[in-house]
Amino acid sequence: MASDGDERVTAAVLIIGDEILSGRTQDTNMRDIARYLAVLGVDLAEARTVPDVMDEIVDALNALRSRYDYVITTGGIGPTHDDITADAVAQAFGVELEEHPEIMAMLSARWGGEVNAARRRMARVPVGGDLVKNPVQGPPGFTIGNVFTLAGVPAIMRGMLEDVGPRLRGGRPTVSRTVRVEGSGEGQIAAPLEAVAKAHTDMSLGSYPFFGPDGYGSNLVVRGRDPAQLVEVVQELIDALRGAGIDNVREVEVA
Amino acid sequence: MASDGDERVTAAVLIIGDEILSGRTQDTNMRDIARYLAVLGVDLAEARTVPDVMDEIVDALNALRSRYDYVITTGGIGPTHDDITADAVAQAFGVELEEHPEIMAMLSARWGGEVNAARRRMARVPVGGDLVKNPVQGPPGFTIGNVFTLAGVPAIMRGMLEDVGPRLRGGRPTVSRTVRVEGSGEGQIAAPLEAVAKAHTDMSLGSYPFFGPDGYGSNLVVRGRDPAQLVEVVQELIDALRGAGIDNVREVEVA
Repeated sequence: MASDGDERVTAAVLIIGDEILSGRTQDTNMRDIARYLAVLGVDLAEARTVPDVMDEIVDALNALRSRYDYVITTGGIGPTHDDITADAVAQAFGVELEEHPEIMAMLSARWGGEVNAARRRMARVPVGGDLVKNPVQGPPGFTIGNVFTLAGVPAIMRGMLEDVGPRLRGGRPTVSRTVRVEGSGEGQIAAPLEAVAKAHTDMSLGSYPFFGPDGYGSNLVVRGRDPAQLVEVVQELIDALRGAGIDNVREVEVA
Repeated sequence: MASDGDERVTAAVLIIGDEILSGRTQDTNMRDIARYLAVLGVDLAEARTVPDVMDEIVDALNALRSRYDYVITTGGIGPTHDDITADAVAQAFGVELEEHPEIMAMLSARWGGEVNAARRRMARVPVGGDLVKNPVQGPPGFTIGNVFTLAGVPAIMRGMLEDVGPRLRGGRPTVSRTVRVEGSGEGQIAAPLEAVAKAHTDMSLGSYPFFGPDGYGSNLVVRGRDPAQLVEVVQELIDALRGAGIDNVREVEVA
């Protein structure tokens, strides 16, 4: 992965599956992808969750792939009739699906003569697409254009991601530092926080409040692409908070 | 809440917050809202996650509110500079923000003379909007048109939801039953499952595979709005699976 300096590189996640929208399944893939991309300097800029409905998937794919550098889809690549992600990606790109010889060879090696129609569905890749390795279990994902189509099962999705990273044009990673305020709520913190934020519009300053044993507090997260500037802004923020009479302030490590 | 029979009632969730897209915070609100709505017969049809950026929030709000019966937003209603959801909702509806007298009275009761500018931010409601009660902690949310704007903190969001439900026009609830197959993978299950699905296009049949001690299996979820028909289709599915030589099949209760 090559770094192109200061240009922002963006991605979107498209989560495909009725089981997420029905509330049956808690999605965790978006967060895993966000963290994986962040290390590469790729910002997750938007996420959408759509049902297993062809037009919905195609429309969302086209909206996202035209707008962001990369789109990562999760879900809908198994062998059953509700697994229509490959069909939707092919339709979005205006190409046909073909049975990929490498996947057919894998399926034959695994199932011999039992490569039935359902299993062959998993070999279908849009014409012009490449495979995304699946180091975990089962058939691979695929990529075409700026879209990467991965499994929905989290462990398999994470395995596939390892074969996505090296293909991305990375940006300058966003780094963050966290200032923890205890015993003061956001209502007190807001003014000094905003003053520092307005003085550094190239950084992102966010406040994530909590309610703990000492009452209200907040984790103030400063994000930016210049680590040296980040150190300065964190100090400026601590000084501004103390100047506003907020004393229980310290920088903390956050996992 | 009145039920209007067979008409489908839809909702979208709009999750607002850099902390979700950065991967810092795992969203759980979408799933909670999906489950809450399902009981009311309202289908969660789409979800989007956008950053704390005005145009992104406004564009997503307008796309979703024109398309679905209801939109529920989470996040961005605190007192800090990055809390801009109220501004975005007002802009989407083309109205001004005003300080709501009930919220101002609550803030005065809580803070007395310390209702500073930051805290007053939380009193801002789009003109024409109504409050959504917050039974947990802090100021209320609000609603305007078909949009409900709730807090991002999960416990507070869930509390506010209780004041949303009674205002929704409910549909006929979707009910589901689950058939569990053990010892057979989706590659075997797919053909009988698809046959039953194609015979009942008014139902939704999904397959959610797992890998357990006895090898592959799958939970087959049948969803529909007619409980009696659901019982019949579940039996038809069990018969179809057994007819295809898949014996370890039973209906299970799912929490």
